[in-house]
Amino acid sequence: MAVASRVTIVDLAHQLGVSRQTISNVLNAPHRVKEETRIRVAKAIEESGYRPNSAARQLRNHISKNVGMRLHPAGNGISGTVLTGFLYGLTQAAHSHGYRVTLYCADSDEEEISRYEELLTEADLDGFVLTATHQDDQRAAWLAERGIPFVAFGRPWNSGTDVPQASHSWVDVDGRSGTRDATEHLLAAGHRRIGFIGWPNGSGVGGDRRAGWYDAMAAHAGTEGLESLTYFGEDTAAGGSSGAAYLLGQGATAFVCAGDGLALGASAYLRQSNQPALASSVIGFDNTPVAAAVGLSSVSQPVESAAAEVMRLLLGHLNSPTAEPQHVLLRPQLELRDLQPFNH
Amino acid sequence: MAVASRVTIVDLAHQLGVSRQTISNVLNAPHRVKEETRIRVAKAIEESGYRPNSAARQLRNHISKNVGMRLHPAGNGISGTVLTGFLYGLTQAAHSHGYRVTLYCADSDEEEISRYEELLTEADLDGFVLTATHQDDQRAAWLAERGIPFVAFGRPWNSGTDVPQASHSWVDVDGRSGTRDATEHLLAAGHRRIGFIGWPNGSGVGGDRRAGWYDAMAAHAGTEGLESLTYFGEDTAAGGSSGAAYLLGQGATAFVCAGDGLALGASAYLRQSNQPALASSVIGFDNTPVAAAVGLSSVSQPVESAAAEVMRLLLGHLNSPTAEPQHVLLRPQLELRDLQPFNH
Repeated sequence: MAVASRVTIVDLAHQLGVSRQTISNVLNAPHRVKEETRIRVAKAIEESGYRPNSAARQLRNHISKNVGMRLHPAGNGISGTVLTGFLYGLTQAAHSHGYRVTLYCADSDEEEISRYEELLTEADLDGFVLTATHQDDQRAAWLAERGIPFVAFGRPWNSGTDVPQASHSWVDVDGRSGTRDATEHLLAAGHRRIGFIGWPNGSGVGGDRRAGWYDAMAAHAGTEGLESLTYFGEDTAAGGSSGAAYLLGQGATAFVCAGDGLALGASAYLRQSNQPALASSVIGFDNTPVAAAVGLSSVSQPVESAAAEVMRLLLGHLNSPTAEPQHVLLRPQLELRDLQPFNH
Repeated sequence: MAVASRVTIVDLAHQLGVSRQTISNVLNAPHRVKEETRIRVAKAIEESGYRPNSAARQLRNHISKNVGMRLHPAGNGISGTVLTGFLYGLTQAAHSHGYRVTLYCADSDEEEISRYEELLTEADLDGFVLTATHQDDQRAAWLAERGIPFVAFGRPWNSGTDVPQASHSWVDVDGRSGTRDATEHLLAAGHRRIGFIGWPNGSGVGGDRRAGWYDAMAAHAGTEGLESLTYFGEDTAAGGSSGAAYLLGQGATAFVCAGDGLALGASAYLRQSNQPALASSVIGFDNTPVAAAVGLSSVSQPVESAAAEVMRLLLGHLNSPTAEPQHVLLRPQLELRDLQPFNH
């Protein structure tokens, strides 16, 4: 019967007179450790043959079949529903491949990176799924530098709204095509002055969604005056109300919104302002249960397909450390509800 | 430096000429293995010193800090929102104690029990959180027999709507007090014929919610005629519409519902039936984002507190195998929106 000799992190810490965290840091975050200590600990680790994750894997003689994902706060049932839907899809997709999903919390990207260190040392995860990607996102770089398998749900947004080439795999939904479809639908219904209600500049997702509206408007009648048909506000119903009020003043008769929260506020404002016909020419984004319940049209993200694609790419990286990064952009669908033809 | 000798499940399987699953079954589900095989494998396990979970724990020199929970399907954003909220609360509560949550899928209780076997053998979980408890629930018995730490979110419903004494710990929300509060509020507003729209008999949760309405009505004017003010339908908006139609025929002027899906259907039916005033005398249950968006009153479950209590009790069992089972019943809150006084 085979017998394996092994050394634990506790043995090492005891022998060297340092904490387990220091040993973890030397392995995962060497910049946090004084150079003198780092050299001493690294030498001892090498001599001992200690290997944190491979040891655990050897014990069980298979990989852990566990992928990690940060759980972002639930939100109000409007924002947050896409990530909740994605989590359900990911757990199901993981399950169909014999994998499970381990959830953890973090309040910032830095804290999420600390969590990676802990999870890799203690929880023996095979890989990670990144969500809520954004400009200057340090998480992908941290994981890539260490050769840890991961796939992002969301593009890196460093190169603006263009589809970026990244050195890691990602899956995303083409928001730009979604708002372009929405705008073209309103143009086909007879609207000419279609406003866009979005989030302030700096949001990659928000810029992408505005770009689709801009594409469709520019293709139809040129770019002149489009700045005056754009309103940026807080991602709340109040922001949407303010946007509708401003854009009504600009002569808008229809409204494409970066999210359902904004769209709900816009349509409520229009109903209360004796413009109920215009309330049905508001299109939201994310097709939340709330949008469905109040009969609001919205752009629907294929979150289950996105989760299945993320898991497919992640399995590729888990099975082959040299797998090339892949980028998958999925097309959303326009969910039309109660939209009326417009006569101007 | 300490050196530990150990034997893997793969070594054992190879030596004995059986599958890993057979070894797992001998340890976790001996009834699945032929008696002859069971004796031979059990003897070899004993002689080898193989101990599946304790071995993994010894390697990492601490418990896994991981609790498991089944992820039920997401539903339509109305049903399912309570369990989603509970999952967020549980992950946060686990995090605050240095624990993580591992999710898995199952289509039935039997499949969930198979999952327990796999997870205990392969994923080294410390304990489980049970959700969606119901009559004749085999999961609690399975875990209890094996001494595996777990806490249920939800009562065992075997003794009807009374609060049961169970041999395991559970946390639940007192639905009965929620519907009683809702009914008393409608009575105080002047309503006398208040209908109840619920789910068919057999649902412990549904029976509990009807009991609160029944308590308040009986305390106010006796039990006579209460059967005719009850409607049981499918847990959908269509079920709620049918319920409102039936109860209007019984002279009802207000409606307490077992869930927000039913309540949404009821209030939509009343609006469309030229009874808009009555639409604001509908009270739902679960205080979903959809109820908030359409201004529907609803009974709100304290899911974050429930999750924190589940984690607290589970830690008690993890830290002390002899901890006594505890039962925690939390009180829900009535969230009033747009309810009008009633003049009859």
